[in-house]
Amino acid sequence: MSYMQREIHEQPRVIERLVREGAAGVGKLCAAAREREIGLLLVAARGTSDHAGVFARYLFEIETGIPVSLAAPSVFTLYEADVRWERTLALGISQSGEAEDATEVLRRARAAGQLTACIVNHVESRMARAAEHVIEMRAGEERSLPATKSYTASLAAVCLLAAGLSPRPDLGRRLEDLPLLIERVLALEGEIERRAERYRYMEKCAVLARGLNQATALEVALKLAETSYVEAHPYSAADFLHGPIAIVEEGFPCFLIAPSGRGYPSMLSLAQTLHERGAETVIVSDQEEILRWAATPFHVPVTVDEALTPLLYVVIGQLFAYHLARVKGRDPDQPRGLHKVTVTR
Amino acid sequence: MSYMQREIHEQPRVIERLVREGAAGVGKLCAAAREREIGLLLVAARGTSDHAGVFARYLFEIETGIPVSLAAPSVFTLYEADVRWERTLALGISQSGEAEDATEVLRRARAAGQLTACIVNHVESRMARAAEHVIEMRAGEERSLPATKSYTASLAAVCLLAAGLSPRPDLGRRLEDLPLLIERVLALEGEIERRAERYRYMEKCAVLARGLNQATALEVALKLAETSYVEAHPYSAADFLHGPIAIVEEGFPCFLIAPSGRGYPSMLSLAQTLHERGAETVIVSDQEEILRWAATPFHVPVTVDEALTPLLYVVIGQLFAYHLARVKGRDPDQPRGLHKVTVTR
Repeated sequence: MSYMQREIHEQPRVIERLVREGAAGVGKLCAAAREREIGLLLVAARGTSDHAGVFARYLFEIETGIPVSLAAPSVFTLYEADVRWERTLALGISQSGEAEDATEVLRRARAAGQLTACIVNHVESRMARAAEHVIEMRAGEERSLPATKSYTASLAAVCLLAAGLSPRPDLGRRLEDLPLLIERVLALEGEIERRAERYRYMEKCAVLARGLNQATALEVALKLAETSYVEAHPYSAADFLHGPIAIVEEGFPCFLIAPSGRGYPSMLSLAQTLHERGAETVIVSDQEEILRWAATPFHVPVTVDEALTPLLYVVIGQLFAYHLARVKGRDPDQPRGLHKVTVTR
Repeated sequence: MSYMQREIHEQPRVIERLVREGAAGVGKLCAAAREREIGLLLVAARGTSDHAGVFARYLFEIETGIPVSLAAPSVFTLYEADVRWERTLALGISQSGEAEDATEVLRRARAAGQLTACIVNHVESRMARAAEHVIEMRAGEERSLPATKSYTASLAAVCLLAAGLSPRPDLGRRLEDLPLLIERVLALEGEIERRAERYRYMEKCAVLARGLNQATALEVALKLAETSYVEAHPYSAADFLHGPIAIVEEGFPCFLIAPSGRGYPSMLSLAQTLHERGAETVIVSDQEEILRWAATPFHVPVTVDEALTPLLYVVIGQLFAYHLARVKGRDPDQPRGLHKVTVTR
């Protein structure tokens, strides 16, 4: 068994542990945020962690009403800008905790008197040292280069934090059901493995989603690119119609992440448009209606609050990327040209 | 002469007119922003205009110190979130002024008592009606589907606004030199046309830049995709090293936008890395040093403040996309599957 496959399967336990053991630390951070009447969440991250940031970008505004800004670290590292934050919570996300440029954003924010926190797997890291509050992923060592369990752990930590600052108290409770639900998605692995074979010679594809699942599109596309060297490109279904759809021709493969929820109707209509254009669609959904348009349907056997779907649907993408890499004869644990920690200065 | 080519060449006059006639309106908006002590700029846009938003994202934090958030319109249009802004300037950008979801962000912000403004080419439009302050692009009718002059007009309007709120008074003055500088870049057209032929059978490429020119990478990639159906994908040079670089193999074409400035050193080092991997590079720069690594060098004959380079360097990309479309036998004015106004709901 490869590290990647093992770590994909560890996800239910990782999230269970994080929800159980992380709650106290998150509670302390939420108390500090309320006391300081935080009016802006500034998220600093890179790579896979940046996709968790995109999730936070949507979830926080939707659940807590706090405006969110995704930091462009080079504003500080390259241009040394003097940004005037007020009542801001700066949140770094990094598996290794060694993302230097995201850490620099936290240092600047802290020096400017703002509240700082980070979500990291390694607490002995520069980002953990730079932030006042540390939320530990508790994911255990991640040995596969393509991140899987640290990604869903980041999403779960973001959910805990949003739940703690949300007037909707049940979001946190529903997080407790997730490990069991992810187990049910993991049970689709046999089918995913079988169906991946069809894409043995796929060289490129688009990965499409809307709203809260834009993070999922970004992350699934990155997994496909990292493990199988597929040129997989993520798009918001809304942006896709503004121009990139011009690349779709007969047989062009498109992955659609389409759970029930507010984003579903536009995914359904996109599935029909792509069908008319002769695209090949891989559709992941809990809705039979949209799956009818798919060349390859993946039926998610559970329906959950849309806010939690990114934690569930990405697992299908991880498994697909893993098995596609195997079908293509690649080692998913060791993609060419990648290092686990990338330091951007 | 196609509309696209004509409109590319209109850019110096469009910017000259905008700087001359737009200054009064921008001045009024800046006075209102100062009076209300704006502490957050919220930018709402889609498609090409969103690339102008990415430019604003960098330029405002660097030049004015005001934190910037790029709105995710679906937070409002899909999820009907109740975001608690304070002392916020919501800025919409849209050529047609008909981008419904970006307009919805302005409506929400205005209803919540925030300052609202927009940059539009059509003042008889829903976005212009929704905003208190309207900055008119004054670009004239844009008939080509791929936007060119309305994009650089948006950037110039963003510069005017940032200059008005910046403690650095000379940025606005330097904008006055731009029309002449763009003329000098337009003079490269013969060379661009000649060199585009080499890419007759290019099917895909990466477009790379850093910092302020990430907007340029996004916009050049979109132009290539729209006009020539090239799968052109934009990346921050920093993010590219985190994973996507795995797709680079012998002969893979990469466009590098590399003007002098704070972003230059990392572009130079990326050019070397790509050279070692056998990539084919098209490099646009005013620096001979980096151009030595290029299969196709485009030497920009002028050196300007990095803050203004996005207005200059994108012109090379527009001309390249235009001539590549011609070489490929495509009509750049009428890409398949595109409409001038895309309404996202």
